[in-house]
Amino acid sequence: MNKKQLFDQIKTKKSFLCVGLDPVLENIPQHLLKYENPVLEFNKQIIDATKDLCVAYKPNTAFYESMGLKGWDTLIKTWAHIPKDIFTIADAKRGDIGNTSAMYADAFFNESKSQMSFDAITVAPYMGKDSVSPFLNYTDKWVILLALTSNAGHSDFQLHQTPDGKLYEEVIRVSSAWANSEQLMYVVGATRGDEFANIRRLAPDNFLLVPGVGAQGGSLADVCEFGLNSECGLLINSSRGIIYAGKGEDFAEKAREEALKLQVEMEQILTAAQLI
Amino acid sequence: MNKKQLFDQIKTKKSFLCVGLDPVLENIPQHLLKYENPVLEFNKQIIDATKDLCVAYKPNTAFYESMGLKGWDTLIKTWAHIPKDIFTIADAKRGDIGNTSAMYADAFFNESKSQMSFDAITVAPYMGKDSVSPFLNYTDKWVILLALTSNAGHSDFQLHQTPDGKLYEEVIRVSSAWANSEQLMYVVGATRGDEFANIRRLAPDNFLLVPGVGAQGGSLADVCEFGLNSECGLLINSSRGIIYAGKGEDFAEKAREEALKLQVEMEQILTAAQLI
Repeated sequence: MNKKQLFDQIKTKKSFLCVGLDPVLENIPQHLLKYENPVLEFNKQIIDATKDLCVAYKPNTAFYESMGLKGWDTLIKTWAHIPKDIFTIADAKRGDIGNTSAMYADAFFNESKSQMSFDAITVAPYMGKDSVSPFLNYTDKWVILLALTSNAGHSDFQLHQTPDGKLYEEVIRVSSAWANSEQLMYVVGATRGDEFANIRRLAPDNFLLVPGVGAQGGSLADVCEFGLNSECGLLINSSRGIIYAGKGEDFAEKAREEALKLQVEMEQILTAAQLI
Repeated sequence: MNKKQLFDQIKTKKSFLCVGLDPVLENIPQHLLKYENPVLEFNKQIIDATKDLCVAYKPNTAFYESMGLKGWDTLIKTWAHIPKDIFTIADAKRGDIGNTSAMYADAFFNESKSQMSFDAITVAPYMGKDSVSPFLNYTDKWVILLALTSNAGHSDFQLHQTPDGKLYEEVIRVSSAWANSEQLMYVVGATRGDEFANIRRLAPDNFLLVPGVGAQGGSLADVCEFGLNSECGLLINSSRGIIYAGKGEDFAEKAREEALKLQVEMEQILTAAQLI
Protein backbone atom coordinates (compact mmCIF):
# COMPACT_ATOMS: atom_id res chain seq x y z
CA MET A 1 0.00 0.00 0.00
CA ASN A 2 1.48 3.36 -0.97
CA LYS A 3 1.14 6.67 0.83
CA LYS A 4 -1.74 7.94 -1.30
CA GLN A 5 -3.64 4.70 -0.83
CA LEU A 6 -3.09 4.89 2.92
CA PHE A 7 -4.38 8.47 3.04
CA ASP A 8 -7.36 7.41 0.91
CA GLN A 9 -8.14 4.69 3.46
CA ILE A 10 -7.91 7.24 6.25
CA LYS A 11 -10.35 9.55 4.46
CA THR A 12 -12.74 6.71 3.66
CA LYS A 13 -12.79 5.32 7.18
CA LYS A 14 -12.44 8.71 8.88
CA SER A 15 -9.87 7.06 11.09
CA PHE A 16 -6.11 6.85 11.49
CA LEU A 17 -6.30 4.14 14.10
CA CYS A 18 -3.87 1.22 14.23
CA VAL A 19 -4.89 -1.69 16.42
CA GLY A 20 -2.02 -3.47 18.14
CA LEU A 21 -2.53 -7.22 18.17
CA ASP A 22 -0.49 -8.18 21.22
CA PRO A 23 -2.28 -11.17 22.70
CA VAL A 24 -1.24 -12.86 25.93
CA LEU A 25 -2.69 -16.30 26.55
CA GLU A 26 -3.34 -15.50 30.21
CA ASN A 27 -5.57 -12.57 29.20
CA ILE A 28 -7.67 -14.41 26.64
CA PRO A 29 -11.35 -14.75 27.63
CA GLN A 30 -12.01 -18.12 29.20
CA HIS A 31 -14.66 -19.19 26.71
CA LEU A 32 -12.09 -19.13 23.90
CA LEU A 33 -9.94 -21.78 25.54
CA LYS A 34 -12.09 -24.46 23.95
CA TYR A 35 -10.70 -23.56 20.53
CA GLU A 36 -7.72 -25.44 19.12
CA ASN A 37 -5.86 -22.11 18.93
CA PRO A 38 -7.45 -19.65 21.40
CA VAL A 39 -5.04 -16.82 20.60
CA LEU A 40 -5.78 -17.03 16.88
CA GLU A 41 -9.51 -17.10 17.56
CA PHE A 42 -9.11 -14.08 19.82
CA ASN A 43 -7.23 -12.17 17.11
CA LYS A 44 -9.74 -13.11 14.43
CA GLN A 45 -12.67 -11.89 16.49
CA ILE A 46 -10.85 -8.66 17.38
CA ILE A 47 -10.09 -8.07 13.69
CA ASP A 48 -13.63 -8.85 12.58
CA ALA A 49 -15.03 -6.47 15.20
CA THR A 50 -12.75 -3.53 14.43
CA LYS A 51 -11.78 -3.75 10.76
CA ASP A 52 -14.13 -0.98 9.62
CA LEU A 53 -12.82 1.38 12.31
CA CYS A 54 -9.08 1.17 11.79
CA VAL A 55 -6.68 1.53 8.88
CA ALA A 56 -3.87 -0.64 10.22
CA TYR A 57 -3.13 -3.67 12.35
CA LYS A 58 0.17 -4.11 14.14
CA PRO A 59 1.00 -7.50 15.62
CA ASN A 60 4.06 -7.25 17.86
CA THR A 61 6.16 -10.29 17.04
CA ALA A 62 7.38 -10.74 20.63
CA PHE A 63 3.95 -11.87 21.77
CA TYR A 64 3.93 -14.63 19.17
CA GLU A 65 7.54 -15.71 19.58
CA SER A 66 6.95 -16.16 23.30
CA MET A 67 4.55 -18.97 22.45
CA GLY A 68 7.09 -20.96 20.49
CA LEU A 69 6.32 -22.69 17.22
CA LYS A 70 2.57 -22.38 17.70
CA GLY A 71 3.03 -18.67 18.25
CA TRP A 72 4.82 -18.20 14.94
CA ASP A 73 2.04 -20.15 13.24
CA THR A 74 -0.48 -17.83 14.94
CA LEU A 75 1.40 -14.79 13.62
CA ILE A 76 1.23 -16.14 10.07
CA LYS A 77 -2.46 -16.96 10.35
CA THR A 78 -3.26 -13.64 11.99
CA TRP A 79 -1.57 -11.80 9.13
CA ALA A 80 -3.57 -13.91 6.66
CA HIS A 81 -6.84 -13.01 8.37
CA ILE A 82 -6.36 -9.24 8.03
CA PRO A 83 -8.28 -7.85 5.02
CA LYS A 84 -5.94 -6.93 2.18
CA ASP A 85 -7.05 -3.29 2.07
CA ILE A 86 -5.79 -2.70 5.62
CA PHE A 87 -2.20 -1.64 6.24
CA THR A 88 -0.22 -4.29 8.12
CA ILE A 89 2.77 -3.60 10.33
CA ALA A 90 5.11 -6.25 11.67
CA ASP A 91 6.20 -4.63 14.91
CA ALA A 92 9.43 -6.56 15.04
CA LYS A 93 12.09 -3.92 15.80
CA ARG A 94 14.63 -5.81 13.74
CA GLY A 95 17.94 -4.65 12.31
CA ASP A 96 21.24 -6.39 11.59
CA ILE A 97 24.15 -6.31 9.14
CA GLY A 98 23.12 -6.15 5.49
CA ASN A 99 22.96 -9.81 4.51
CA THR A 100 21.07 -10.55 7.72
CA SER A 101 18.59 -7.70 7.44
CA ALA A 102 17.88 -9.07 3.95
CA MET A 103 16.78 -12.27 5.67
CA TYR A 104 14.52 -10.33 8.02
CA ALA A 105 13.07 -8.56 5.00
CA ASP A 106 12.28 -11.95 3.48
CA ALA A 107 10.75 -13.04 6.77
CA PHE A 108 8.20 -10.25 6.84
CA PHE A 109 7.84 -9.13 3.20
CA ASN A 110 8.31 -12.22 1.04
CA GLU A 111 5.25 -14.42 1.26
CA SER A 112 6.67 -17.08 -1.06
CA LYS A 113 9.45 -17.73 1.45
CA SER A 114 7.88 -16.99 4.80
CA GLN A 115 4.08 -17.13 4.33
CA MET A 116 3.77 -13.47 5.34
CA SER A 117 3.90 -10.18 3.49
CA PHE A 118 3.33 -7.21 5.74
CA ASP A 119 3.20 -3.69 4.34
CA ALA A 120 5.71 -2.42 6.88
CA ILE A 121 8.17 -3.42 9.56
CA THR A 122 9.53 -1.52 12.54
CA VAL A 123 13.33 -1.31 12.51
CA ALA A 124 15.87 -0.22 15.14
CA PRO A 125 18.36 2.37 13.83
CA TYR A 126 21.46 1.60 15.91
CA MET A 127 23.31 -0.35 13.19
CA GLY A 128 22.86 2.34 10.54
CA LYS A 129 22.12 2.51 6.84
CA ASP A 130 23.11 -0.95 5.64
CA SER A 131 20.94 -2.50 8.35
CA VAL A 132 17.91 -0.65 6.97
CA SER A 133 18.49 -0.69 3.20
CA PRO A 134 17.58 -4.37 2.63
CA PHE A 135 14.05 -3.62 3.79
CA LEU A 136 13.85 -0.62 1.47
CA ASN A 137 14.87 -2.82 -1.45
CA TYR A 138 11.30 -4.05 -1.31
CA THR A 139 10.16 -0.89 -3.05
CA ASP A 140 6.46 -1.42 -2.34
CA LYS A 141 7.11 -1.85 1.38
CA TRP A 142 7.78 0.47 4.29
CA VAL A 143 10.35 0.83 7.04
CA ILE A 144 9.12 2.36 10.28
CA LEU A 145 12.28 3.47 12.03
CA LEU A 146 12.44 3.91 15.80
CA ALA A 147 13.02 7.58 16.52
CA LEU A 148 11.63 8.63 19.91
CA THR A 149 10.01 5.75 21.74
CA SER A 150 7.27 5.82 24.36
CA ASN A 151 9.06 3.98 27.18
CA ALA A 152 11.01 5.43 30.09
CA GLY A 153 14.27 4.17 28.59
CA HIS A 154 13.96 6.60 25.68
CA SER A 155 15.94 9.04 27.77
CA ASP A 156 18.93 6.71 28.15
CA PHE A 157 20.26 7.33 24.64
CA GLN A 158 17.65 8.90 22.34
CA LEU A 159 17.90 12.32 24.00
CA HIS A 160 21.71 12.37 24.10
CA GLN A 161 23.12 15.52 22.60
CA THR A 162 25.28 15.16 19.52
CA PRO A 163 26.93 18.02 17.60
CA ASP A 164 23.89 18.09 15.29
CA GLY A 165 21.11 17.71 17.85
CA LYS A 166 19.65 15.00 19.99
CA LEU A 167 20.28 11.44 18.89
CA TYR A 168 16.68 10.86 17.81
CA GLU A 169 16.85 14.03 15.73
CA GLU A 170 20.01 12.70 14.12
CA VAL A 171 18.25 9.41 13.40
CA ILE A 172 15.54 11.30 11.53
CA ARG A 173 17.96 13.64 9.76
CA VAL A 174 20.44 10.96 8.66
CA SER A 175 17.83 8.38 7.69
CA SER A 176 15.90 10.89 5.58
CA ALA A 177 18.69 10.48 3.01
CA TRP A 178 18.03 6.72 2.83
CA ALA A 179 14.42 6.89 1.65
CA ASN A 180 11.70 9.45 1.23
CA SER A 181 8.31 9.67 2.88
CA GLU A 182 6.90 7.14 0.41
CA GLN A 183 8.82 4.36 2.14
CA LEU A 184 9.91 5.67 5.50
CA MET A 185 7.88 6.33 8.64
CA TYR A 186 9.07 6.94 12.19
CA VAL A 187 7.99 5.61 15.56
CA VAL A 188 7.31 8.51 17.89
CA GLY A 189 5.76 7.82 21.27
CA ALA A 190 2.66 9.71 22.31
CA THR A 191 4.18 10.12 25.75
CA ARG A 192 6.47 12.76 24.25
CA GLY A 193 3.79 15.10 22.91
CA ASP A 194 6.10 18.05 23.63
CA GLU A 195 8.51 16.88 20.95
CA PHE A 196 5.99 16.53 18.11
CA ALA A 197 6.38 20.05 16.76
CA ASN A 198 10.10 19.50 16.56
CA ILE A 199 9.67 16.14 14.85
CA ARG A 200 7.33 17.63 12.26
CA ARG A 201 10.01 20.22 11.49
CA LEU A 202 12.48 17.41 10.77
CA ALA A 203 10.03 15.05 9.04
CA PRO A 204 7.24 17.19 7.57
CA ASP A 205 5.96 14.61 5.10
CA ASN A 206 6.55 11.28 6.83
CA PHE A 207 3.88 9.27 8.49
CA LEU A 208 4.49 8.78 12.19
CA LEU A 209 3.48 5.60 13.98
CA VAL A 210 2.45 6.69 17.45
CA PRO A 211 2.24 4.16 20.27
CA GLY A 212 1.57 5.15 23.84
CA VAL A 213 -1.98 6.49 23.64
CA GLY A 214 -4.06 4.80 26.32
CA ALA A 215 -2.31 2.32 28.61
CA GLN A 216 0.96 4.24 28.43
CA GLY A 217 -0.69 7.59 29.15
CA GLY A 218 -0.24 9.64 25.95
CA SER A 219 -2.88 12.13 24.78
CA LEU A 220 -4.41 11.90 21.29
CA ALA A 221 -5.23 15.61 21.23
CA ASP A 222 -1.68 16.61 22.14
CA VAL A 223 -0.22 14.38 19.45
CA CYS A 224 -2.58 15.65 16.76
CA GLU A 225 -2.11 19.32 17.60
CA PHE A 226 1.45 19.19 16.32
CA GLY A 227 1.59 15.86 14.50
CA LEU A 228 -1.06 16.14 11.79
CA ASN A 229 0.08 17.09 8.31
CA SER A 230 -1.75 17.61 5.02
CA GLU A 231 -2.03 13.85 4.45
CA CYS A 232 -2.88 13.13 8.08
CA GLY A 233 0.60 11.75 8.61
CA LEU A 234 -0.29 9.86 11.76
CA LEU A 235 -1.10 6.28 12.62
CA ILE A 236 -2.16 6.15 16.25
CA ASN A 237 -1.72 2.75 17.82
CA SER A 238 -3.77 1.35 20.64
CA SER A 239 -3.21 -2.21 21.83
CA ARG A 240 -4.21 -3.07 25.38
CA GLY A 241 -6.84 -0.31 25.57
CA ILE A 242 -8.77 -2.00 22.77
CA ILE A 243 -8.04 -5.71 22.83
CA TYR A 244 -8.49 -6.08 26.59
CA ALA A 245 -11.46 -3.73 26.93
CA GLY A 246 -13.56 -6.73 27.91
CA LYS A 247 -12.70 -10.06 29.48
CA GLY A 248 -15.99 -11.88 28.92
CA GLU A 249 -17.89 -13.37 26.02
CA ASP A 250 -18.54 -9.85 24.73
CA PHE A 251 -14.83 -9.00 24.52
CA ALA A 252 -15.01 -8.29 20.79
CA GLU A 253 -17.95 -5.91 21.23
CA LYS A 254 -16.10 -4.16 24.03
CA ALA A 255 -13.04 -3.89 21.82
CA ARG A 256 -15.21 -2.41 19.10
CA GLU A 257 -16.63 0.14 21.54
CA GLU A 258 -13.15 1.34 22.47
CA ALA A 259 -12.05 1.45 18.83
CA LEU A 260 -15.21 3.38 17.98
CA LYS A 261 -14.49 5.98 20.66
CA LEU A 262 -11.10 6.60 19.11
CA GLN A 263 -12.50 6.62 15.57
CA VAL A 264 -15.12 9.21 16.52
CA GLU A 265 -12.46 11.38 18.13
CA MET A 266 -10.28 10.98 15.03
CA GLU A 267 -13.15 11.91 12.73
CA GLN A 268 -13.62 15.12 14.67
CA ILE A 269 -9.92 15.87 14.42
CA LEU A 270 -9.80 15.16 10.67
CA THR A 271 -12.89 17.31 10.13
CA ALA A 272 -11.51 20.18 12.17
CA ALA A 273 -8.29 19.98 10.15
CA GLN A 274 -10.34 20.00 6.93
CA LEU A 275 -8.76 16.75 5.80
CA ILE A 276 -12.17 15.15 5.22
CA MET B 1 26.20 -21.11 32.15
CA ASN B 2 27.96 -18.56 34.34
CA LYS B 3 31.17 -16.69 33.62
CA LYS B 4 33.43 -19.07 35.49
CA GLN B 5 31.90 -22.06 33.73
CA LEU B 6 32.40 -20.35 30.38
CA PHE B 7 36.05 -19.64 31.15
CA ASP B 8 36.45 -23.24 32.31
CA GLN B 9 35.09 -24.42 28.96
CA ILE B 10 37.53 -22.12 27.17
CA LYS B 11 40.45 -23.55 29.14
CA THR B 12 39.32 -27.13 28.61
CA LYS B 13 38.80 -26.76 24.89
CA LYS B 14 41.64 -24.29 24.39
CA SER B 15 39.27 -22.32 22.25
CA PHE B 16 37.10 -19.21 22.44
CA LEU B 17 35.43 -19.89 19.14
CA CYS B 18 31.73 -19.28 18.54
CA VAL B 19 30.29 -20.85 15.41
CA GLY B 20 27.55 -18.84 13.75
CA LEU B 21 24.77 -21.07 12.48
CA ASP B 22 23.38 -18.91 9.68
CA PRO B 23 22.17 -21.38 7.06
CA VAL B 24 20.77 -20.34 3.69
CA LEU B 25 18.85 -23.00 1.81
CA GLU B 26 20.48 -22.02 -1.49
CA ASN B 27 23.94 -22.73 -0.02
CA ILE B 28 23.15 -26.13 1.47
CA PRO B 29 25.06 -29.00 -0.19
CA GLN B 30 22.92 -30.71 -2.82
CA HIS B 31 23.09 -34.16 -1.27
CA LEU B 32 21.24 -32.89 1.81
CA LEU B 33 18.17 -31.91 -0.17
CA LYS B 34 16.90 -35.46 0.11
CA TYR B 35 16.29 -34.95 3.84
CA GLU B 36 12.88 -33.84 5.08
CA ASN B 37 14.54 -30.77 6.60
CA PRO B 38 17.84 -30.12 4.77
CA VAL B 39 18.71 -27.03 6.82
CA LEU B 40 18.32 -28.88 10.10
CA GLU B 41 20.41 -31.76 8.81
CA PHE B 42 23.06 -29.26 7.69
CA ASN B 43 23.13 -27.64 11.13
CA LYS B 44 23.28 -30.98 12.93
CA GLN B 45 26.23 -32.15 10.88
CA ILE B 46 28.03 -28.82 11.36
CA ILE B 47 27.46 -29.04 15.12
CA ASP B 48 28.58 -32.66 15.31
CA ALA B 49 31.74 -31.85 13.36
CA THR B 50 32.76 -28.79 15.38
CA LYS B 51 31.43 -29.25 18.90
CA ASP B 52 34.80 -30.17 20.43
CA LEU B 53 36.46 -27.13 18.87
CA CYS B 54 34.13 -24.32 19.91
CA VAL B 55 32.64 -23.09 23.16
CA ALA B 56 29.54 -21.42 21.71
CA TYR B 57 27.00 -21.62 18.90
CA LYS B 58 25.14 -18.60 17.67
CA PRO B 59 22.16 -19.10 15.38
CA ASN B 60 21.07 -15.79 13.87
CA THR B 61 17.30 -15.80 14.06
CA ALA B 62 16.87 -13.90 10.77
CA PHE B 63 18.02 -16.90 8.77
CA TYR B 64 15.34 -19.06 10.36
CA GLU B 65 12.52 -16.52 10.25
CA SER B 66 13.12 -16.05 6.53
CA MET B 67 11.99 -19.65 6.04
CA GLY B 68 8.63 -19.14 7.70
CA LEU B 69 7.09 -21.63 10.09
CA LYS B 70 9.48 -24.40 9.09
CA GLY B 71 12.36 -22.05 9.81
CA TRP B 72 11.20 -21.38 13.35
CA ASP B 73 10.85 -25.12 13.86
CA THR B 74 14.40 -25.53 12.57
CA LEU B 75 15.64 -22.94 15.06
CA ILE B 76 14.02 -24.83 17.94
CA LYS B 77 15.44 -28.16 16.80
CA THR B 78 18.87 -26.68 16.14
CA TRP B 79 18.97 -25.31 19.69
CA ALA B 80 17.91 -28.72 21.00
CA HIS B 81 20.75 -30.43 19.12
CA ILE B 82 23.49 -28.32 20.70
CA PRO B 83 25.19 -30.14 23.60
CA LYS B 84 24.17 -28.65 26.95
CA ASP B 85 27.74 -27.82 27.98
CA ILE B 86 28.13 -25.43 25.06
CA PHE B 87 27.11 -21.77 25.42
CA THR B 88 24.19 -20.85 23.18
CA ILE B 89 23.47 -17.40 21.84
CA ALA B 90 20.23 -16.36 20.15
CA ASP B 91 21.53 -13.67 17.81
CA ALA B 92 18.20 -11.93 17.65
CA LYS B 93 19.02 -8.25 18.21
CA ARG B 94 15.72 -7.72 19.98
CA GLY B 95 14.62 -4.89 22.25
CA ASP B 96 11.25 -3.24 22.94
CA ILE B 97 9.30 -1.61 25.77
CA GLY B 98 9.38 -3.50 29.04
CA ASN B 99 6.30 -5.70 28.81
CA THR B 100 7.28 -6.62 25.25
CA SER B 101 10.94 -7.35 25.97
CA ALA B 102 9.62 -9.67 28.68
CA MET B 103 7.89 -11.60 25.90
CA TYR B 104 11.13 -11.77 23.92
CA ALA B 105 12.86 -13.03 27.04
CA ASP B 106 10.26 -15.79 27.29
CA ALA B 107 10.77 -16.56 23.61
CA PHE B 108 14.47 -17.26 23.97
CA PHE B 109 14.96 -18.15 27.64
CA ASN B 110 11.80 -19.92 28.80
CA GLU B 111 11.73 -23.43 27.40
CA SER B 112 8.38 -24.25 28.98
CA LYS B 113 6.74 -21.53 26.91
CA SER B 114 8.79 -21.43 23.73
CA GLN B 115 10.67 -24.74 23.50
CA MET B 116 14.00 -22.91 23.63
CA SER B 117 16.31 -21.78 26.40
CA PHE B 118 19.43 -20.10 25.10
CA ASP B 119 22.15 -18.93 27.49
CA ALA B 120 22.24 -15.48 25.92
CA ILE B 121 20.53 -13.13 23.52
CA THR B 122 21.85 -10.17 21.57
CA VAL B 123 19.92 -6.98 22.31
CA ALA B 124 19.85 -3.56 20.62
CA PRO B 125 20.38 -0.67 23.07
CA TYR B 126 18.41 2.14 21.40
CA MET B 127 15.33 1.87 23.67
CA GLY B 128 17.32 1.99 26.90
CA LYS B 129 17.26 0.31 30.28
CA ASP B 130 13.68 -0.93 30.51
CA SER B 131 14.05 -2.62 27.13
CA VAL B 132 17.00 -4.62 28.47
CA SER B 133 15.99 -5.33 32.08
CA PRO B 134 13.41 -8.04 31.32
CA PHE B 135 16.16 -10.21 29.87
CA LEU B 136 18.32 -9.63 32.94
CA ASN B 137 15.47 -10.77 35.16
CA TYR B 138 16.45 -14.25 34.04
CA THR B 139 19.35 -14.19 36.45
CA ASP B 140 21.07 -17.25 35.00
CA LYS B 141 21.01 -15.78 31.48
CA TRP B 142 23.03 -13.20 29.59
CA VAL B 143 22.38 -10.06 27.57
CA ILE B 144 24.85 -9.33 24.81
CA LEU B 145 24.31 -5.67 24.05
CA LEU B 146 25.22 -4.15 20.69
CA ALA B 147 28.04 -1.67 21.25
CA LEU B 148 30.24 -1.26 18.18
CA THR B 149 29.09 -3.41 15.28
CA SER B 150 31.09 -4.79 12.39
CA ASN B 151 29.09 -3.36 9.49
CA ALA B 152 29.68 -0.16 7.54
CA GLY B 153 26.62 1.43 9.12
CA HIS B 154 28.28 1.43 12.54
CA SER B 155 29.53 4.91 11.69
CA ASP B 156 26.05 6.32 11.11
CA PHE B 157 25.23 6.63 14.81
CA GLN B 158 27.56 4.54 17.01
CA LEU B 159 30.49 6.92 16.55
CA HIS B 160 28.48 10.10 17.13
CA GLN B 161 30.01 12.33 19.74
CA THR B 162 28.02 12.97 22.88
CA PRO B 163 29.12 15.10 25.84
CA ASP B 164 30.46 11.94 27.49
CA GLY B 165 32.10 10.28 24.51
CA LYS B 166 31.05 8.41 21.41
CA LEU B 167 27.61 6.87 21.47
CA TYR B 168 28.93 3.31 21.66
CA GLU B 169 31.08 4.34 24.63
CA GLU B 170 27.98 5.78 26.27
CA VAL B 171 26.13 2.53 25.63
CA ILE B 172 28.85 0.65 27.50
CA ARG B 173 29.14 3.22 30.29
CA VAL B 174 25.40 3.60 30.91
CA SER B 175 24.56 -0.09 30.59
CA SER B 176 27.31 -1.10 33.00
CA ALA B 177 25.00 0.19 35.74
CA TRP B 178 22.26 -2.22 34.65
CA ALA B 179 24.18 -5.45 35.19
CA ASN B 180 27.70 -6.57 35.90
CA SER B 181 30.02 -8.73 33.85
CA GLU B 182 28.32 -11.88 35.14
CA GLN B 183 25.28 -11.14 32.99
CA LEU B 184 26.30 -8.56 30.43
CA MET B 185 28.49 -8.92 27.36
CA TYR B 186 28.95 -6.55 24.43
CA VAL B 187 29.04 -7.04 20.67
CA VAL B 188 32.18 -5.46 19.27
CA GLY B 189 33.02 -6.01 15.63
CA ALA B 190 36.46 -7.32 14.70
CA THR B 191 36.53 -4.81 11.88
CA ARG B 192 37.18 -2.12 14.49
CA GLY B 193 40.33 -3.61 16.00
CA ASP B 194 41.61 -0.06 16.63
CA GLU B 195 38.87 0.52 19.21
CA PHE B 196 39.50 -2.60 21.31
CA ALA B 197 41.93 -0.98 23.73
CA ASN B 198 39.39 1.73 24.39
CA ILE B 199 36.62 -0.79 24.87
CA ARG B 200 38.67 -2.77 27.36
CA ARG B 201 39.19 0.43 29.33
CA LEU B 202 35.40 0.87 29.55
CA ALA B 203 34.54 -2.80 30.05
CA PRO B 204 37.56 -4.50 31.60
CA ASP B 205 35.73 -7.56 32.90
CA ASN B 206 32.97 -8.16 30.36
CA PHE B 207 33.08 -10.81 27.72
CA LEU B 208 32.96 -9.39 24.21
CA LEU B 209 31.24 -11.22 21.38
CA VAL B 210 33.26 -10.45 18.30
CA PRO B 211 31.81 -10.99 14.84
CA GLY B 212 33.58 -9.95 11.69
CA VAL B 213 36.61 -12.24 11.68
CA GLY B 214 36.82 -13.93 8.30
CA ALA B 215 34.23 -13.00 5.69
CA GLN B 216 33.96 -9.45 7.01
CA GLY B 217 37.73 -8.95 7.10
CA GLY B 218 38.62 -8.60 10.80
CA SER B 219 41.90 -9.92 12.22
CA LEU B 220 41.95 -12.35 15.13
CA ALA B 221 45.43 -11.24 16.19
CA ASP B 222 44.45 -7.57 16.26
CA VAL B 223 41.37 -8.29 18.34
CA CYS B 224 43.25 -10.44 20.85
CA GLU B 225 46.13 -8.01 21.27
CA PHE B 226 43.86 -5.56 23.04
CA GLY B 227 40.74 -7.61 23.73
CA LEU B 228 41.98 -10.49 25.91
CA ASN B 229 41.56 -10.18 29.64
CA SER B 230 42.42 -12.43 32.56
CA GLU B 231 39.39 -14.67 31.91
CA CYS B 232 39.90 -14.60 28.14
CA GLY B 233 36.92 -12.25 27.83
CA LEU B 234 36.41 -12.91 24.11
CA LEU B 235 34.07 -15.04 22.07
CA ILE B 236 35.16 -14.86 18.47
CA ASN B 237 32.41 -15.67 16.03
CA SER B 238 32.87 -17.16 12.59
CA SER B 239 29.84 -18.05 10.49
CA ARG B 240 30.32 -18.19 6.74
CA GLY B 241 34.04 -18.95 6.97
CA ILE B 242 33.24 -22.21 8.73
CA ILE B 243 29.82 -23.39 7.64
CA TYR B 244 30.41 -22.78 3.93
CA ALA B 245 34.02 -23.97 3.83
CA GLY B 246 32.87 -26.83 1.63
CA LYS B 247 29.95 -27.26 -0.71
CA GLY B 248 30.17 -31.00 -1.31
CA GLU B 249 29.52 -34.18 0.60
CA ASP B 250 32.53 -33.39 2.78
CA PHE B 251 31.14 -30.01 3.88
CA ALA B 252 31.20 -30.97 7.57
CA GLU B 253 34.83 -32.09 7.38
CA LYS B 254 35.73 -28.85 5.62
CA ALA B 255 33.88 -26.90 8.30
CA ARG B 256 35.84 -28.82 10.93
CA GLU B 257 39.12 -27.98 9.18
CA GLU B 258 38.34 -24.27 9.28
CA ALA B 259 37.19 -24.44 12.91
CA LEU B 260 40.36 -26.35 13.76
CA LYS B 261 42.55 -23.67 12.18
CA LEU B 262 40.93 -21.07 14.39
CA GLN B 263 41.11 -23.31 17.47
CA VAL B 264 44.83 -23.90 16.94
CA GLU B 265 45.42 -20.18 16.55
CA MET B 266 43.37 -19.53 19.69
CA GLU B 267 45.32 -22.15 21.66
CA GLN B 268 48.53 -20.37 20.73
CA ILE B 269 47.06 -17.06 21.83
CA LEU B 270 45.79 -18.47 25.14
CA THR B 271 49.15 -20.11 25.79
CA ALA B 272 51.09 -16.96 25.00
CA ALA B 273 48.82 -15.05 27.38
CA GLN B 274 49.43 -17.71 30.05
CA LEU B 275 45.69 -18.35 30.37
CA ILE B 276 46.16 -22.09 29.83
